[in-house]
Amino acid sequence: MRTVLVIGIGTGNPEHMTVQAINALNRADLVLLPKKGEAKEDLAQLRREICRLYLRREATRIVEFDLPSRDEAEPAYGKRVADWHGEIARLYEGLIAAYTGEEGTVALLVWGDPSLYDSTLRILDRLEAAAGWPLRREVVPGIASIQALCASHGVALNTVGGAVHVTTGRRLRAGETGQADTIVVLLDGETSFLSLPPGVFDIHWGAYLGTPDEILLAGPLEEVAPAILAARREAQVRKGWIMDTYILRRRAA
Amino acid sequence: MRTVLVIGIGTGNPEHMTVQAINALNRADLVLLPKKGEAKEDLAQLRREICRLYLRREATRIVEFDLPSRDEAEPAYGKRVADWHGEIARLYEGLIAAYTGEEGTVALLVWGDPSLYDSTLRILDRLEAAAGWPLRREVVPGIASIQALCASHGVALNTVGGAVHVTTGRRLRAGETGQADTIVVLLDGETSFLSLPPGVFDIHWGAYLGTPDEILLAGPLEEVAPAILAARREAQVRKGWIMDTYILRRRAA
Repeated sequence: MRTVLVIGIGTGNPEHMTVQAINALNRADLVLLPKKGEAKEDLAQLRREICRLYLRREATRIVEFDLPSRDEAEPAYGKRVADWHGEIARLYEGLIAAYTGEEGTVALLVWGDPSLYDSTLRILDRLEAAAGWPLRREVVPGIASIQALCASHGVALNTVGGAVHVTTGRRLRAGETGQADTIVVLLDGETSFLSLPPGVFDIHWGAYLGTPDEILLAGPLEEVAPAILAARREAQVRKGWIMDTYILRRRAA
Repeated sequence: MRTVLVIGIGTGNPEHMTVQAINALNRADLVLLPKKGEAKEDLAQLRREICRLYLRREATRIVEFDLPSRDEAEPAYGKRVADWHGEIARLYEGLIAAYTGEEGTVALLVWGDPSLYDSTLRILDRLEAAAGWPLRREVVPGIASIQALCASHGVALNTVGGAVHVTTGRRLRAGETGQADTIVVLLDGETSFLSLPPGVFDIHWGAYLGTPDEILLAGPLEEVAPAILAARREAQVRKGWIMDTYILRRRAA
């Protein structure tokens, strides 16, 4: 039976790799590296750097491939995502069949943690359902962006005994802030915090977390928002892309 | 200025240590290890094992100390926690002053991730406010139990574009389930999932995550709950303690 290792690699700092992740990487016969389709060539570069730093097994083959992009012409969000996952699953199936034997082991290097807002496990569900051969999967957890954000700010995510609402930019813009006193916003390319009322939240914001380009800003949301917008604009021009994350905390009444 | 390194060590598997955590550990002049006060002697043993495996610097001094326990006679929860944190802060202050110079570096090894339901950062806030000397802190993120749980079950935490409500057993028992389709329950020693109605949730449950004693159970809550209760009872008798975590997912209507 073939084995797929789904390895969390952390969020930009190669030192986020765990010993478990390094050992898993060195069990792989094949490492699949997406080289295009992601806006962020820097992420492809991070994966290459991780292989260079930690892969000691000479027999391991590294194969780069073009990741397909989503069909933005498809209007239904659910179908758009499902079609895209299906296409990636077929691509993985072909690459794994071509480059590994029936007892082969393949590694997929997932940015952040494979359990948190990443599609790889769902794509493997499709691959398992469609492939003509059995597949065993092993998941190795990794440092997620929200953990890197809290670590860099030196703050705890939750209040004492408090709850945390983890959500997306899309949901926040729809007014869904939850009842918890802490909100984590992921997958937000559109500064959705601007949709919130003033005087309610403090923000801890970060971009390019874990990398030498890391930017951190924190304070009352209505005071810090202009600085975040300016920092995002400047960085996007300089680097060509931005990836940011933030926590909102309801101020004590 | 003294430096405190708050290092996330993961959840029981010494291979959860990141390269960043290992490098931070090796910068410490002093490592403080709590030996009592936690019910779980196994956790003290994990910290010793991590030092044995990864600490290569001979000059580093390891000092074990008794962690005070909370005064359960204090009826107000907030005051009980605050008093306890104050007591630990004074203890840290004394140990750091006794065992490090004014430019010294001390490491605290935090189970899981320092940002998630851990008191260390709040205790350091008190220490900084009270100590007669300045303090720099550095936080190193670590694998949290919820990530180890998802990895072991091979599942994603969130649904596609969905939100996640992270809460405590205490809040769940109070009926606070949030609006998200996924609920993470932490700090629950009292099987609070029994307070939920049948027919609504699936559960992914795990105990002793990351260790050789790991137990995993999953399925419709009302079907799996008896097996979880039996497994908890059996394990608690055999090991003398239990630490478990779970995810609840609302079933599609």
